[in-house]
Amino acid sequence: MGAEVELLYDVPRLEEKFIIRALKNFGIELKLTNVKYSPLSWSDHAAPVALVRPISMIRAIYSASLREAVGAKTINSSISIMFAGDKVLTLSRFRQAKIPFPKSIIAFGSEAAEKAGKIIGYPAIDKPPIGSWGRLVTLVKDHQTLQSIVEHRELLLSQSVKTHIIQRYINGGDRDYRVLVLGGEPLGAIMRSAVKGDWRSNVARGGKAKAVKLDEELSELAVKAAEVIGGEFMAIDLFHDGEKYLVNEVNGVPEFKGFMEATKIDVAEKLAKYIKLVLRR
Amino acid sequence: MGAEVELLYDVPRLEEKFIIRALKNFGIELKLTNVKYSPLSWSDHAAPVALVRPISMIRAIYSASLREAVGAKTINSSISIMFAGDKVLTLSRFRQAKIPFPKSIIAFGSEAAEKAGKIIGYPAIDKPPIGSWGRLVTLVKDHQTLQSIVEHRELLLSQSVKTHIIQRYINGGDRDYRVLVLGGEPLGAIMRSAVKGDWRSNVARGGKAKAVKLDEELSELAVKAAEVIGGEFMAIDLFHDGEKYLVNEVNGVPEFKGFMEATKIDVAEKLAKYIKLVLRR
Amino acid sequence: MGAEVELLYDVPRLEEKFIIRALKNFGIELKLTNVKYSPLSWSDHAAPVALVRPISMIRAIYSASLREAVGAKTINSSISIMFAGDKVLTLSRFRQAKIPFPKSIIAFGSEAAEKAGKIIGYPAIDKPPIGSWGRLVTLVKDHQTLQSIVEHRELLLSQSVKTHIIQRYINGGDRDYRVLVLGGEPLGAIMRSAVKGDWRSNVARGGKAKAVKLDEELSELAVKAAEVIGGEFMAIDLFHDGEKYLVNEVNGVPEFKGFMEATKIDVAEKLAKYIKLVLRR
Amino acid sequence: MGAEVELLYDVPRLEEKFIIRALKNFGIELKLTNVKYSPLSWSDHAAPVALVRPISMIRAIYSASLREAVGAKTINSSISIMFAGDKVLTLSRFRQAKIPFPKSIIAFGSEAAEKAGKIIGYPAIDKPPIGSWGRLVTLVKDHQTLQSIVEHRELLLSQSVKTHIIQRYINGGDRDYRVLVLGGEPLGAIMRSAVKGDWRSNVARGGKAKAVKLDEELSELAVKAAEVIGGEFMAIDLFHDGEKYLVNEVNGVPEFKGFMEATKIDVAEKLAKYIKLVLRR
Repeated sequence: MGAEVELLYDVPRLEEKFIIRALKNFGIELKLTNVKYSPLSWSDHAAPVALVRPISMIRAIYSASLREAVGAKTINSSISIMFAGDKVLTLSRFRQAKIPFPKSIIAFGSEAAEKAGKIIGYPAIDKPPIGSWGRLVTLVKDHQTLQSIVEHRELLLSQSVKTHIIQRYINGGDRDYRVLVLGGEPLGAIMRSAVKGDWRSNVARGGKAKAVKLDEELSELAVKAAEVIGGEFMAIDLFHDGEKYLVNEVNGVPEFKGFMEATKIDVAEKLAKYIKLVLRR
Repeated sequence: MGAEVELLYDVPRLEEKFIIRALKNFGIELKLTNVKYSPLSWSDHAAPVALVRPISMIRAIYSASLREAVGAKTINSSISIMFAGDKVLTLSRFRQAKIPFPKSIIAFGSEAAEKAGKIIGYPAIDKPPIGSWGRLVTLVKDHQTLQSIVEHRELLLSQSVKTHIIQRYINGGDRDYRVLVLGGEPLGAIMRSAVKGDWRSNVARGGKAKAVKLDEELSELAVKAAEVIGGEFMAIDLFHDGEKYLVNEVNGVPEFKGFMEATKIDVAEKLAKYIKLVLRR
Repeated sequence: MGAEVELLYDVPRLEEKFIIRALKNFGIELKLTNVKYSPLSWSDHAAPVALVRPISMIRAIYSASLREAVGAKTINSSISIMFAGDKVLTLSRFRQAKIPFPKSIIAFGSEAAEKAGKIIGYPAIDKPPIGSWGRLVTLVKDHQTLQSIVEHRELLLSQSVKTHIIQRYINGGDRDYRVLVLGGEPLGAIMRSAVKGDWRSNVARGGKAKAVKLDEELSELAVKAAEVIGGEFMAIDLFHDGEKYLVNEVNGVPEFKGFMEATKIDVAEKLAKYIKLVLRR
Repeated sequence: MGAEVELLYDVPRLEEKFIIRALKNFGIELKLTNVKYSPLSWSDHAAPVALVRPISMIRAIYSASLREAVGAKTINSSISIMFAGDKVLTLSRFRQAKIPFPKSIIAFGSEAAEKAGKIIGYPAIDKPPIGSWGRLVTLVKDHQTLQSIVEHRELLLSQSVKTHIIQRYINGGDRDYRVLVLGGEPLGAIMRSAVKGDWRSNVARGGKAKAVKLDEELSELAVKAAEVIGGEFMAIDLFHDGEKYLVNEVNGVPEFKGFMEATKIDVAEKLAKYIKLVLRR
């Protein structure tokens, strides 16, 4: 093959285009694999480094896993993508490492969810363990609304999506902070605010992003969260409750277009440079 | 609390009843938690050992994860249940450890699945990465049938179930071997044969089980597979292709009623004894 | 076969048991067909009358349709079960017949649903066209909650369940009236009230039922609704908005256990008697 | 409003563009309503004629139903789209009218489906009552394959898709005939052949279409089928088993691009002319 880096992807976003250009600028031999169309096998020959970029979490985990099986170094590793992609596993890691996060309860069925709602109180956040861009994350204002949400969720087939994380709503939960961490170093930070009429700050939902200073608390917390989850290139999302930061979630296949625009940091170039160093080891 | 062991379950099977009786016989203080009805939290107080028995893989992984987060030793650990419960992750571990398994290809979409079918050839096995009791495991006799199966699978919502593991069909694939491994030691082995008209040997499908001698090859392979996946109490399923054993899959929350009947080995008692030792450490 | 009446059912409820007993008391030769286990064909020989009682709306419509195709008289006819079972078709019939119902708008997607919510105003009711026992019927208190419900509904596979009927909430919507109509005559009426904590009065949700007097307005409206939908044995559910009755929905395979208990009217006996007359025609 | 015709659509295809141009050529005042974005209400003011063109069967039925409720003439009517769109209802109508169709059995569950397979014999066709472009239509070669298909279908949420029509496979089933019928007159006929490797002749699957002569048997059968279903503008699909034609299915919102190319008949112009006549009545 000869390629030094294999880019595993499914739907190429602007991010993947930036990454490809940056890798080429560093003279890295690149192989592109669209995992939607190419079957993958446990006897494939792999490039030394696999950069794992599928949007679908399952495709990202599985393609990373197959490449690791035949000796490639993956960025990120399958296990860190799995831990980052599942909010229950993320919070368990955080709990072990004493990383602060909003008070949360997990419920597997309607009865448990209703108990959990009463314990947490309203307004509460209800979200499934898996999902991106704030999908199905619901601001639940009262118990009756929780019952309706639970009833809807029961009809979905996936046991994972039937699982509820019921979480205390953080005042100021319509804005959050995102720090990108690469190889244990924070690249910068942005703050995102929800558009009027929504309360989720996800850029994919039209949330506005602006660069903010990386203070020490933010920086340390983000680096620690990335370390605990085990990813080399990660986005860490945090709330501030007025007193301190709380980590909300992490992303193991981070989008960074909004971050680049707000901070003017060339994330793709920094990633390519990092991979160049990895290849030299 | 006072309990030494917490039994986490959802639907109590005969196995759980046997386990409860055996633990009580050993004088172990037991707490029963039906995770379907009890919300679980990252600030719960946990017993020293959590025995993880939910039938639902997701519930098993999550409830193990929450107990580990607050310091409990889990049998099995969340990560071993996750690796055992997902056939892609299982095979990647096997590949790294050079454990033999049937030639397999993974495909994320219809186009990739059709390519994979042509590479493996027919008859082939098509199965999703996740699922128990042989559900959706299909013996695919020709390419047109593969296309129909793929088309059906596309309509299912879960990305995981849309993923195809296309596998070479092993002659004699209508019988398999199951070894139970506890604390690194094999307890015994059974052979299961499919009933006429089916080709899957799962006991849940009416497959007949009989005790077989644990030969050295079977024993070593099973113990190694359990070790690689990381579980303390595991069931290992294997095929024999006429020449050698191939590991098919592993189970991190094993059923053992059929095994007990065929071998007369009191699995529950052995498990309780093992837990007693763990508690003394 | 010789049977005069074929009872088509899937899950036998108390209602079906009462019906079987009553038909036998009238000396009617009966054939029982569980449509879950018996395939049905367009060349089956049919009894003169088919009593259509599957709980599943699809099974009820299809089994009625097949029996009509080979000459049976069905109670109710496939088309009346279809119209009754789909709230969009029901309301269209009502509109044509000038039967009053709560102001309603239909929306096929999230954008249309949000427009509809603004037109109707809050609180509103959001429900899918198909479904029993109040399932997924949601009391939506504000626009943000509507957005969350719409987002959940989008993930369900069925286009029908993705369709929203957004309806003005009727004050007093936590109680409703049910009239049973048989052969164009009202049998009686009950009023159902929601249990505390819910707002849906369905008996299946624990709603309390009591007999009420059939006043003329209620009686005329119910008979007219049954006639417009075309069913011979129907339950008609109505609200009272303080001024007048509004028909909410109709049921083409009515449950009547709660009605019998509250009114002491032997519905099964009346039904059997009616069928006896039909057979004599 | 002033519009004489309202075109109800969701995804505009080439067909809708042709229709719009033709209606304008005839000087007809046209209103376009994309039902995906516009909520529809039972108090909307409607144009005299509604041309119903949504691809989604549910959207087509519902939007037709709402327009009929407020007095519009719909082409086609909601009830004919419903009968055409559901293969069980279609076959029941055919049976009543003695229109020949392939021998078929309906099964609601796995047990009934397996019985039906044994009665029909293999190869058989298994298809759900609802669906377009041959989706999920499966050529089942043996009983084991039927079991696998049934098992997949069970996991789909919709009761309708869980229903099996098990049908005798017609020799020559890889080609079929399509006749377009407008206002009780046949417009022409095409024959479609499956591409190599598939066995379904749907043009959407790459099937090749060519014009064929409308013989009397074909013509009469198609006109009768359209009449029985009740549609004014319909596509009728037929097989020929070597001896005679058998009607396979009908389409109440017909695509006609392939038909126009093969026959050079300007279907859109004929449709516009027909609507002009309807408006004058």
